[in-house]
Amino acid sequence: MLKDDERLDYLLAENLRIIQSPSVFSFSLDAVLLARFASIPKGSKGKIVDLCSGNGAIPLFLSARTNAQIIGVELQERLVDMAIRSVDYNKLSHQLHLYQGDVKQAPKTIGVESVDTVTCNPPYFLAHEASDRNLSEHHAIARHEIHLTLEESIYAASRLLKQGGKAAFVHRPGRLLDIVTFMRANRLEPKRIQFVYPKMGKEANTVLVEGMKDGKSDVKILPPLYVYDEMGEYTKEVSTLLYGES
Amino acid sequence: MLKDDERLDYLLAENLRIIQSPSVFSFSLDAVLLARFASIPKGSKGKIVDLCSGNGAIPLFLSARTNAQIIGVELQERLVDMAIRSVDYNKLSHQLHLYQGDVKQAPKTIGVESVDTVTCNPPYFLAHEASDRNLSEHHAIARHEIHLTLEESIYAASRLLKQGGKAAFVHRPGRLLDIVTFMRANRLEPKRIQFVYPKMGKEANTVLVEGMKDGKSDVKILPPLYVYDEMGEYTKEVSTLLYGES
Repeated sequence: MLKDDERLDYLLAENLRIIQSPSVFSFSLDAVLLARFASIPKGSKGKIVDLCSGNGAIPLFLSARTNAQIIGVELQERLVDMAIRSVDYNKLSHQLHLYQGDVKQAPKTIGVESVDTVTCNPPYFLAHEASDRNLSEHHAIARHEIHLTLEESIYAASRLLKQGGKAAFVHRPGRLLDIVTFMRANRLEPKRIQFVYPKMGKEANTVLVEGMKDGKSDVKILPPLYVYDEMGEYTKEVSTLLYGES
Repeated sequence: MLKDDERLDYLLAENLRIIQSPSVFSFSLDAVLLARFASIPKGSKGKIVDLCSGNGAIPLFLSARTNAQIIGVELQERLVDMAIRSVDYNKLSHQLHLYQGDVKQAPKTIGVESVDTVTCNPPYFLAHEASDRNLSEHHAIARHEIHLTLEESIYAASRLLKQGGKAAFVHRPGRLLDIVTFMRANRLEPKRIQFVYPKMGKEANTVLVEGMKDGKSDVKILPPLYVYDEMGEYTKEVSTLLYGES
């Protein structure tokens, strides 16, 4: 079942396994944070779409929180192939549907205004920032706005969502103003923001933003999340997310 | 020198005194936070303008950080009168100039594109929210957008600033998106944001935002500031701001 340098890693907190490959793609802490941060539809009737799904980490994490249908969209064939084998391994193919496709086409493919929740961990870096990095093509596409810009991913999320539906994004704080500007320009009113700090006393290095389609203007800033404590160990909050309750 | 129910309070950390009145106006922690947060011009040549100056708390606090000229603009005659007497009492009239005026006219009065730093602790509440509150007229005008909207204060700040100058605002997080949207629409690019949390584990209840006129897009999220500790006492950071090093 595993190819090349792939590994079958644990998602310990959820008792799931996920196929990863150091040379192709491994999920990051940001995916874990987004899967925990996003508001999910109540009950099992809703529909969730994860854009830029990579190897399917966010759909897998979300499956532990809901019985709703979860669709993952990922451009790269190689990553979708890993994701589908992970879904099969975890016997979740009744709930999780990963497919290869362009996020920009997702509203047409899945259905405009048909979705309750969208999650998206988009490429963080501008396309021109890719040239000075020595990345594999897989990593370059996943991390840089080569085939998808931030604005395009926000537009796709908004088109997918029903009125009152919610879209959650994770990104670098340096792009916060662009995110909220693009969201507001696309009928997504930011309602919840959480900043993630590497440790106490440092600037935030990650931001989680959730908006509601056609929502009223009134944003809440959630308590800060710290990744490491004074000793350089994961804080209890992050350790619980990664490894479950100790 | 004191009128009616006025008191001469200490600004302990700065070894200054300030005239306050419970029935008219007292400065809040937010003023202290803004005076500490704002970037000030280097050297003594710069010009600082504080909009919505109230009883002059922010100019007084700033005087402890810089020798630059500081101008305060306040609409309410009664508050300006208190501020001027405080400036005189502290023998700071060579540096601090408080005057009664409409913030909307400040660029014309003080000079368009003539200022290095603007600080502004504007009215927090929408005008219509005033009706259900039993406030004195002085408090109502200071706290509600009766004579000045958020957008008008941001526009005035931007007009006052030289290119590269900085404007710092304090407000409620619920208006964060409006602040950054209005700032960007008025050539003020948000560069530093700090959230203030009443205590660990709670949502932020105050936000400090600083923008640079015609600055590049790249915002930093500073470490969180907590007001109270687990015991309900001021944290060391806030206590130092209010009372100085212990």
